Amino acid sequence: VNEVKWSEAEKQLARRVFGAALAAELAEAIADFKTRAAAVVEPDDMWAIEAHLHDKRLEFDRKYDYRYSQLISVFGHLLREGRIQVDQLAGLSEEKLQAIRLIASF
Amino acid sequence: VNEVKWSEAEKQLARRVFGAALAAELAEAIADFKTRAAAVVEPDDMWAIEAHLHDKRLEFDRKYDYRYSQLISVFGHLLREGRIQVDQLAGLSEEKLQAIRLIASF
Repeated sequence: VNEVKWSEAEKQLARRVFGAALAAELAEAIADFKTRAAAVVEPDDMWAIEAHLHDKRLEFDRKYDYRYSQLISVFGHLLREGRIQVDQLAGLSEEKLQAIRLIASF
Repeated sequence: VNEVKWSEAEKQLARRVFGAALAAELAEAIADFKTRAAAVVEPDDMWAIEAHLHDKRLEFDRKYDYRYSQLISVFGHLLREGRIQVDQLAGLSEEKLQAIRLIASF
């Protein structure tokens, strides 16, 4: 295992970028939820939202994993999805940026 | 076990009363859900609704159990909650009505 070291400055940057992406995706999820909820007519529509929320919550837990051992992968996936931009990551070591871009390119 | 027999006429009446109570409580649950959903501000409000829907669904499954072996108890509870009225049950045998009223009185 090649352990990646995060400097204090990198940690601060990572925390900020991670937090902004998470907040934005949560805001989207809430807006989507409200649209779905307002469109409910039948009981089954409502139970479908329960299942949807359940899946969403697990997805958030998996996707937004702020462990330094996971963060390169997390940022790679967020970059691929367009949820973060490369220039937001300026300040991370070149080694980290290469790894993040590589994961984003898969 | 004293097995209660249900005549065809009783089954039809039971099905009608049961269905109406279920539909009314589901409509209430949907209205309540929409009010809660519209009031969501924070992610935690949304996840709380997931948990609430989960509990509600289990509650409906438990409460609206249309097995003839359970129906006396089901009607007793619905009567106690005011979700059905005694006169809706007119047509059931006196034995069943007594049992339903007894359960409702607990």
